[in-house]
Amino acid sequence: MTATHAVYQTIALVVRQNTDGIAESVRSVVDFLQQDGYTAVFEEQTAAHLGFEMANVRVMSATEIGAHCDAAIVMGGDGTMLGIARQLAPFDVPLIGINQGRLGFMTDIPLDAMLDVLPKILAGRYKAERRTLLEGRVMRNGEIIHVGLAVNDVVVSRGGGAGMAELRVDVDGHFMYNQRSDGLIISTPTGSTAYALSAGGPLLHPSLGGIVLVPIAPHALSNRPIVLPESSEIVVEIVRGRDISVNFDMQTFASLQAQDRIVIQRSPHSITFLHPEGWSYYNTLREKLHWNEYPSGEGKLN
Amino acid sequence: MTATHAVYQTIALVVRQNTDGIAESVRSVVDFLQQDGYTAVFEEQTAAHLGFEMANVRVMSATEIGAHCDAAIVMGGDGTMLGIARQLAPFDVPLIGINQGRLGFMTDIPLDAMLDVLPKILAGRYKAERRTLLEGRVMRNGEIIHVGLAVNDVVVSRGGGAGMAELRVDVDGHFMYNQRSDGLIISTPTGSTAYALSAGGPLLHPSLGGIVLVPIAPHALSNRPIVLPESSEIVVEIVRGRDISVNFDMQTFASLQAQDRIVIQRSPHSITFLHPEGWSYYNTLREKLHWNEYPSGEGKLN
Amino acid sequence: MTATHAVYQTIALVVRQNTDGIAESVRSVVDFLQQDGYTAVFEEQTAAHLGFEMANVRVMSATEIGAHCDAAIVMGGDGTMLGIARQLAPFDVPLIGINQGRLGFMTDIPLDAMLDVLPKILAGRYKAERRTLLEGRVMRNGEIIHVGLAVNDVVVSRGGGAGMAELRVDVDGHFMYNQRSDGLIISTPTGSTAYALSAGGPLLHPSLGGIVLVPIAPHALSNRPIVLPESSEIVVEIVRGRDISVNFDMQTFASLQAQDRIVIQRSPHSITFLHPEGWSYYNTLREKLHWNEYPSGEGKLN
Amino acid sequence: MTATHAVYQTIALVVRQNTDGIAESVRSVVDFLQQDGYTAVFEEQTAAHLGFEMANVRVMSATEIGAHCDAAIVMGGDGTMLGIARQLAPFDVPLIGINQGRLGFMTDIPLDAMLDVLPKILAGRYKAERRTLLEGRVMRNGEIIHVGLAVNDVVVSRGGGAGMAELRVDVDGHFMYNQRSDGLIISTPTGSTAYALSAGGPLLHPSLGGIVLVPIAPHALSNRPIVLPESSEIVVEIVRGRDISVNFDMQTFASLQAQDRIVIQRSPHSITFLHPEGWSYYNTLREKLHWNEYPSGEGKLN
Repeated sequence: MTATHAVYQTIALVVRQNTDGIAESVRSVVDFLQQDGYTAVFEEQTAAHLGFEMANVRVMSATEIGAHCDAAIVMGGDGTMLGIARQLAPFDVPLIGINQGRLGFMTDIPLDAMLDVLPKILAGRYKAERRTLLEGRVMRNGEIIHVGLAVNDVVVSRGGGAGMAELRVDVDGHFMYNQRSDGLIISTPTGSTAYALSAGGPLLHPSLGGIVLVPIAPHALSNRPIVLPESSEIVVEIVRGRDISVNFDMQTFASLQAQDRIVIQRSPHSITFLHPEGWSYYNTLREKLHWNEYPSGEGKLN
Repeated sequence: MTATHAVYQTIALVVRQNTDGIAESVRSVVDFLQQDGYTAVFEEQTAAHLGFEMANVRVMSATEIGAHCDAAIVMGGDGTMLGIARQLAPFDVPLIGINQGRLGFMTDIPLDAMLDVLPKILAGRYKAERRTLLEGRVMRNGEIIHVGLAVNDVVVSRGGGAGMAELRVDVDGHFMYNQRSDGLIISTPTGSTAYALSAGGPLLHPSLGGIVLVPIAPHALSNRPIVLPESSEIVVEIVRGRDISVNFDMQTFASLQAQDRIVIQRSPHSITFLHPEGWSYYNTLREKLHWNEYPSGEGKLN
Repeated sequence: MTATHAVYQTIALVVRQNTDGIAESVRSVVDFLQQDGYTAVFEEQTAAHLGFEMANVRVMSATEIGAHCDAAIVMGGDGTMLGIARQLAPFDVPLIGINQGRLGFMTDIPLDAMLDVLPKILAGRYKAERRTLLEGRVMRNGEIIHVGLAVNDVVVSRGGGAGMAELRVDVDGHFMYNQRSDGLIISTPTGSTAYALSAGGPLLHPSLGGIVLVPIAPHALSNRPIVLPESSEIVVEIVRGRDISVNFDMQTFASLQAQDRIVIQRSPHSITFLHPEGWSYYNTLREKLHWNEYPSGEGKLN
Repeated sequence: MTATHAVYQTIALVVRQNTDGIAESVRSVVDFLQQDGYTAVFEEQTAAHLGFEMANVRVMSATEIGAHCDAAIVMGGDGTMLGIARQLAPFDVPLIGINQGRLGFMTDIPLDAMLDVLPKILAGRYKAERRTLLEGRVMRNGEIIHVGLAVNDVVVSRGGGAGMAELRVDVDGHFMYNQRSDGLIISTPTGSTAYALSAGGPLLHPSLGGIVLVPIAPHALSNRPIVLPESSEIVVEIVRGRDISVNFDMQTFASLQAQDRIVIQRSPHSITFLHPEGWSYYNTLREKLHWNEYPSGEGKLN
């Protein structure tokens, strides 16, 4: 056992549900872990939907994984990673993302390369990258009525059949604006490649200490995305609007009322991704955003 | 009484609700109409909320106005105009828009100029402008379950707490795309200055025979607004998504299901605005969109 | 020889320069044409750069092709098509576009399908599609100093090191705005997938009778793209700015001065593309804009 | 004389050229400074265009001001501020901005309030705000051929009549992309309200440690603005394109060639603005971007 094994000894496996043919891959990862002297653990939902057991593989809840595991291997897409990342954030268990055929922003290791890459990462040859999270408290009449955590974004938005929402935004105690729109996305750098991008927001490099506010279909054409320091306290107050809800990574808290306020700050927790050595954020962007589809020398769009 | 009076003889008045101090303006319009030999009519909701009666002013429903009136004067904002325009469209009663202090896209005559302008317009000195409408049929299992009419837009969109909608769009029997987004706006030129503009759509000149499709926060960055000929038949099918609704000028038909289809075409009806002579669409755009705030010779944004 | 051959009898070939391995394809097209009783003609630049001759293939200038040919087959990319289309527009010679490996907006027949498709098209089994062109006259002190024709767009823009341009735009004699920007694109529907799209313009369906004005990096955030009827006369006047030039499909006329005016209208000429039966504009859009990269059921962007 | 006077004792005046009626304001500022025991200094260009002298007011070059003055009062617009800020940056002389009738992003004190505000600021009652600058080195064949400094932005762009530029961008030694566009803006937070905003970039809060890259009319629709940490080293290489120039706050270095590289980093210098107490960045944004034009309760855009 090397010095590194002292660090990464117990490894949790989290696997996306309803994934055809994943069983074999899971077995091969467990085999590799056990052969190399690691202790393998199944996350409890994973264990349930996998529908098979393996010798010497304990089953743990996310909280237990947080307490006992040194790293978690996530097999699936970015959605799977998003779910477990939010649960493990308070424990800062490093995460390793394996995708199944389609590169993810957070699941960057292809399935067919994992048995080559995992031993190196677990042996300490990795590129660690920290990602910030947002924390939001929903306040009504001075009381906290809900608390949420988001890896990607906090979204305050109107219902489908409702008219425009009117939101008042204050930052660090300064009034920013009253905004009329379909809603407002408050996004981490991690979320800047997700919904915020669709709504017209910029990309934020993960190591930028920033939070971006992206209005959704704002009434005023000059209500442009704005990037704030991650130390900012952002308060969104519902001024008017029906069917307003707030979503933390698309987990909904509905039935907001006028005068409700959502207080958003950087979470004290963060998550750590372990990438293979040589990993580059820009490679992922180029691939996911098809930036390399018009290489030099080739034809023009028209 | 001139020949023109034979054309515009009976004039309906439609007035926005809850408008402080409007009574005096309404009275002065009625006085002018009656003194000049026109017959004045109150739209029934207008009569109800005005809370006063005037001699020789009959009260009519929108349908009766459609059958009996030669023109309608609308006092309020664009919202008031939008509501009555949709009701009067089948009858093609020309509409004259009076705004209260704030220029509207459709209510272009300031309150304090109306007694100067109205006599001229009713005497035939106007610039008439036709606007197209959209008609949408909601189909389920081959049956029409709802029909709507829109002056501005037909909007298919997801609920606030729901995930992305997936919509399939076909035009004139040709598959256009499967789109994942918050929804899709199908807008007339009239609607191109409203919600469609907020969502990133272009302005369409009212005399352009076109319909614009504007995706709301589309997943694919290349899902750009597209302008189609107004002869197009556009079919939007709900592929997946929860809480999807369709709105006709923000009048909601909710509870759409997967496989429901909305068939959208230019309505056989249209509406006619009567503007003062010398009216220019571009003047309204400049004023409403603040295009003249950086005149030549002045400072730069920065 | 069928009746159709009476229509399409003499066929010109226009081939992109510097295209490796094109000789064989050209020979096979000429062979097919001659075997089926058509007369094949080489456009003169094509003949020059091909560097070989073929029996019974005359060489003609674009003007001669306009006078004598019934159709032109264009082998290359959209750039090649653009160049010859502008030259042949006054003669309305129908155009058939063959691409080499990469679908073009205007060159829609793959090289390896051409010998299957061309006989059908020339035999009259095609989908014809007309495209409008723009004509621009540059006026100085009341004199015309330049005239240009554009399939895609007329672009008025500043030089790289110059400050913002200020342009005054009038449409049909009505003042639209004074705009400060890097420039203004006036685009046909054909051009709406080219530079205008990069600058934030909407897509225009080719059968829409419209022209779109797209400002490039406008100072005023509300200076949005606007679609006008194709009957519009658009006048762009240079108010101020250094190094301003006007480009017709990227063919430059430079050294514009303050007070110069560019008068832009739909050209009386148009071009006709012959597509294979079953061709759909939307298929091309989907492919070129990667709209089908996120099919139903697959992963999300994040 | 208070302790603060020991800090701010010699005060430079920088005044915009060609400003009607500015003489009286300048005289009143000098009078105030001298009466309160400060030493007033005219920047040399200011002295030249003012065309009058005042007793006991020395004239200094920007470099001398850097060496001898404790603060500079800038009367004019943001352009005037931009010019002197870049020159004084190496000396970190704090800057106080007075505007003439139109609020600036950097000149935030109205002319008619200056005699009330200046004594307080010079007495130490201010809100200081630091702004980062960019430094760019143009490299050819391994040699530095030009060095520039920018408060707002470094812009690499093509000439007006030239085709698209192709630029290769690397960040911290990692390849980001080959981009085809009209050019690329590399902007500080200060510049994010200027040209970068026109080209579609986000707003960056001045205290965010970030630099934003905004492509101008990029060919690939997914080439979106990206915000990087201010510690980044950004290398832009000219891959192809004619008439490419690089501009530092619109000061041009032209005649770039293929393979030239511009290496951009945060400058070791920064500038400091002194704002009145109670100043809020968001107030300036709201006013300059017209965010408060649709207050709650008022009409809708349409």
